[in-house]
Amino acid sequence: MKELLKGGITAPLGFKANGIFCGIKKSKKRDLMLIASDSPCAAAGVFTTNQLKAACVQFNLKQLRNNQAQAIMANSGNANCLTGPSGKRHNLMMAESAAKALGISPAMILTASTGVIGQRLPIDRVTEGMQELADGLRTGPQASEDAAQAILTTDLVCKEKALKIRVGGRTVRIGAISKGSGMMHPYMTANGQKHATMLCFVTTDAVIGEAALKSALNTAVGRSFNMISVDGDQSTNDMVLVLANGKARNPIIREKTPEFRIFLAALEDICIDMAKAMIHDAEGATKFVEIAVKNAKTAEDARAVAMSIGCSNLVKTALYGCDPNWGRIAASIGYASVVIDPSRLQIKIGPYVVLKGDQGVRQKEAQLAKIFRKEEIRVTVDLGLGTKNAVIWTSDLSTQYVKINSAYRT
Amino acid sequence: MKELLKGGITAPLGFKANGIFCGIKKSKKRDLMLIASDSPCAAAGVFTTNQLKAACVQFNLKQLRNNQAQAIMANSGNANCLTGPSGKRHNLMMAESAAKALGISPAMILTASTGVIGQRLPIDRVTEGMQELADGLRTGPQASEDAAQAILTTDLVCKEKALKIRVGGRTVRIGAISKGSGMMHPYMTANGQKHATMLCFVTTDAVIGEAALKSALNTAVGRSFNMISVDGDQSTNDMVLVLANGKARNPIIREKTPEFRIFLAALEDICIDMAKAMIHDAEGATKFVEIAVKNAKTAEDARAVAMSIGCSNLVKTALYGCDPNWGRIAASIGYASVVIDPSRLQIKIGPYVVLKGDQGVRQKEAQLAKIFRKEEIRVTVDLGLGTKNAVIWTSDLSTQYVKINSAYRT
Repeated sequence: MKELLKGGITAPLGFKANGIFCGIKKSKKRDLMLIASDSPCAAAGVFTTNQLKAACVQFNLKQLRNNQAQAIMANSGNANCLTGPSGKRHNLMMAESAAKALGISPAMILTASTGVIGQRLPIDRVTEGMQELADGLRTGPQASEDAAQAILTTDLVCKEKALKIRVGGRTVRIGAISKGSGMMHPYMTANGQKHATMLCFVTTDAVIGEAALKSALNTAVGRSFNMISVDGDQSTNDMVLVLANGKARNPIIREKTPEFRIFLAALEDICIDMAKAMIHDAEGATKFVEIAVKNAKTAEDARAVAMSIGCSNLVKTALYGCDPNWGRIAASIGYASVVIDPSRLQIKIGPYVVLKGDQGVRQKEAQLAKIFRKEEIRVTVDLGLGTKNAVIWTSDLSTQYVKINSAYRT
Repeated sequence: MKELLKGGITAPLGFKANGIFCGIKKSKKRDLMLIASDSPCAAAGVFTTNQLKAACVQFNLKQLRNNQAQAIMANSGNANCLTGPSGKRHNLMMAESAAKALGISPAMILTASTGVIGQRLPIDRVTEGMQELADGLRTGPQASEDAAQAILTTDLVCKEKALKIRVGGRTVRIGAISKGSGMMHPYMTANGQKHATMLCFVTTDAVIGEAALKSALNTAVGRSFNMISVDGDQSTNDMVLVLANGKARNPIIREKTPEFRIFLAALEDICIDMAKAMIHDAEGATKFVEIAVKNAKTAEDARAVAMSIGCSNLVKTALYGCDPNWGRIAASIGYASVVIDPSRLQIKIGPYVVLKGDQGVRQKEAQLAKIFRKEEIRVTVDLGLGTKNAVIWTSDLSTQYVKINSAYRT
């Protein structure tokens, strides 16, 4: 029932986008982006739970109190975080200049920033570029791609997707762009209370209730972005924003209805694809690793064990070295914050059981090594304690990751 | 009052040591070690809190129920962990063969293993080498160094220290050897309940009560080994063991006495030196970093914030790159499990305040970069929430660390 569309965030009716270079990035690549709906939207967001929140995160938390917005503006190259009162003022100036260029109220603008922490945002360049940015708003694949490029930092590729579904006899479109490659260990909630800079902006022309939109976003993020980690470092700026302008004129989507489940499935599909794309584009990554933890007491336990494995530098360097050293996987389970029963533990590398109970299972080393030489690797852990599961996605830790992140900022 | 001694673990009266190559390590370096006292000792230990504990850890937890032991035997090159019932049997066989070679009860033997997890210990080589090992027991600097070498894995240097103190008019000697370079994030307790392989064996000729010995060990480890991290990966095999044979004939040391404080200070001195030596010898390390967190509500909070900084890959790669990117330090504080108040936060790099409240403090970039180019760096964080402090020591994350840990095990 889902069908892929071209046009990214401009695929849904009534949305335009643009991305330009305004003067923040030394590379002179696009660094300022705007997504605008023709009319006011139901809006929802989830935000980093890092306790040191960037100015844009603090701003959006307030803006979304009335669950309304009409446009999202974002800059890359500077996180405008830990910049004190002047940082807050600069963020407000960004919003105000976007509102002015669009001829709408500043109350209808959401903001996002990504880049270096603690540096003054060159606000003049942002405000001076705003009219050009707004004047260039348009629909189509290139508009969406320009916007997607303008939020990239260390990312190598643009991340965008759009699809259409049928809701109550009407066609509903959902589109998204996102960025994220390092400082990636998102854990976002609606009230922004726990790390990465990752950004994802979703547009839809669905008619959907505010509560349903919030609920769908929370559920979809819980199964996608909150299930990935590149380096265990949670950013001060993570956010996912969704705007729904109702142009599809479908019967309103309410929670706990078949239509809600269709919408949620589509939103989840997009969020999971975007999350996986971030891992494929993770800094220095040579592997895409799926870690499934089964039969935990709670879903949170399952995630915690999976993240303990996925964040272990020893596991990640073994993955990089194509070394099926499952002892490191076991050790990282043993130090997870979750109580386990070693006698019930089972670890599989691909289809091969390597640990059962507290004992290694002899497998042909060459077979295991073959799996670890693949670009996509699946590790499955059975805790044998309950019925709850989690699947996370992570990358390896390469010498290239260290080079990228040890290179001086200039 | 403290004076350095030569002789390492054989500096205390009545202790002999030896280390040989028995056939475990492919490098043919020393891999089997024995420390023995002429007479039974009061004994205490702290063990990894990783839930997957190696056979030696499980064994020693039982052996130490009566707080008595006379000898410590250890192998390197194989962790004998997750090796099931046969691993337990092999560990027992190690202890029994050591007991036989020494002519004492197996109840008086403590064991330790370090190396790869999940591989079968070549027990025949261990038992066959045991008599040669015991026959070579002797005192002196070379004996201690041979033993210290026999517990090394990826370590580049031997770690040992001995000193003497005066207790009740008598000279008391304390000696130690240790190993640890990777899979290092120790958190050890007396009942082994929370990660690294690090090993430290302490000998002393003090007369000391069992409770006092335990208490001194717990306190000293809490301020030393439990305050270091190389890679955030806690081992299944960590342990610190202490044997006190009473040959110094000092008045018995009891808790809460001036003599206890003298003994504790000496033990702490040795443990802190050993812990710092591990960080200096950390896998691929080019930096030695001290992170001091002040004015937390609890000492545990202070340690948690310090470890959150010290375990951040982005902080560690910035250290490697000599890039004073304090925004990464701030982000890692923000995602610590401890509730902070951003308005009270202060971060110093060396003597320079870089963050005060939620705002960066402009410092000359060249000055900061100069500090980050040094081999020893100090970061100080003031949480402004209480009166408790913690100091931890960590290393940077280099391309060499990735190379060491991605190299195939063969």
